[in-house]
Amino acid sequence: MSNSREISYPTAKTTAKTYNIKTETPNFSNMAKRGMSLESLINTSNEFYLFQEIACIHKKPTPIQVVNVEYKSRATARITEAYYTTPSTTDYNGVFNQKHIDFEAKQTNLSSLPFHNFHKHQIEHMTRVTKQGGICFVIIYFVKFDVFYLIPSTFIVDAYAKSKNEGQRKSISAKIAAEIGYAIELNSFPPIDYLQIIKQYYQGGAFVGK
Amino acid sequence: MSNSREISYPTAKTTAKTYNIKTETPNFSNMAKRGMSLESLINTSNEFYLFQEIACIHKKPTPIQVVNVEYKSRATARITEAYYTTPSTTDYNGVFNQKHIDFEAKQTNLSSLPFHNFHKHQIEHMTRVTKQGGICFVIIYFVKFDVFYLIPSTFIVDAYAKSKNEGQRKSISAKIAAEIGYAIELNSFPPIDYLQIIKQYYQGGAFVGK
Repeated sequence: MSNSREISYPTAKTTAKTYNIKTETPNFSNMAKRGMSLESLINTSNEFYLFQEIACIHKKPTPIQVVNVEYKSRATARITEAYYTTPSTTDYNGVFNQKHIDFEAKQTNLSSLPFHNFHKHQIEHMTRVTKQGGICFVIIYFVKFDVFYLIPSTFIVDAYAKSKNEGQRKSISAKIAAEIGYAIELNSFPPIDYLQIIKQYYQGGAFVGK
Repeated sequence: MSNSREISYPTAKTTAKTYNIKTETPNFSNMAKRGMSLESLINTSNEFYLFQEIACIHKKPTPIQVVNVEYKSRATARITEAYYTTPSTTDYNGVFNQKHIDFEAKQTNLSSLPFHNFHKHQIEHMTRVTKQGGICFVIIYFVKFDVFYLIPSTFIVDAYAKSKNEGQRKSISAKIAAEIGYAIELNSFPPIDYLQIIKQYYQGGAFVGK
């Protein structure tokens, strides 16, 4: 499967500023093996989507509570005390072909991603986005197996709720992810072509069979 | 004009946790007069939309570049040096009735909002969102006149580009805003019912005549 070859990307003039695709194609496959994070791979993919005018999707800034700011001069403010706060939404969102896109990215070194990696507020957020007709999912990178899966948020929401009960799964294994999710192959441009999955498998407001 | 009365909001159980609408309706009109910021008014409106399940729209966290972090204990990380960075997108986005919503909010004490209040990247972002079929606009609060206008981003993008030329307007006056934009009346719930404007005046991918 090579998703990226099936898409005929428009030739955008803006791309030339950032990459010379023909001569400078970086080897993201090697990069991932050398420890390039899922976040970096997605950010690069989003940049590609942006410059090719395929979609406008961004990572939200990390929420930080600022406690103290020093004004050294009129122009510069220096934050001297601040704390990371728990995000109440997912990390990424934007618009693609008239559709609202919303997702979270998780990377794990384990064979299974524990559900406690999701905050309660994030799960509630996924439910809300889906109710409003947005396309919501999670991308999981199992570093150990070097595989990436796109998991519809409906599965995550359901499994998260069940995980609170005794005797239920507390995590999502790579095996389950392969069954209920959609594999994303690592490519050059974009490295993680998750929108190709949306194009192929999201129809009539829901993810459809592989 | 009283937009909010025209909507029959669903009775959401979740609302009771936050507000008792019948007994505790705050007077946002007075609050605005007493200096409640546009940001607070929009945040309260978004909270209302969220709990009433009308839409899922959030303010993005302020982008901050963290330079130094101290780890006092395992649980807490204290940021000791950080700086505010220029936002590359607008402040608010989300999903409403299957549509991607994206907007910026600006408050001014002047009779005119200077275009230099917008960053170049924000203008580019607005263009991209519109191209992808998202609904993009700016809400301007002219404190002096106590009026709120929703301005379609297409106007802002166009006027911003023109403003770089000699002899062209460098700002948007309350008078122009009233002509090309849509007035939003201050209400109780939600204080700034901007989605009512979208419902009424956004059709077939564009804002239509008042």
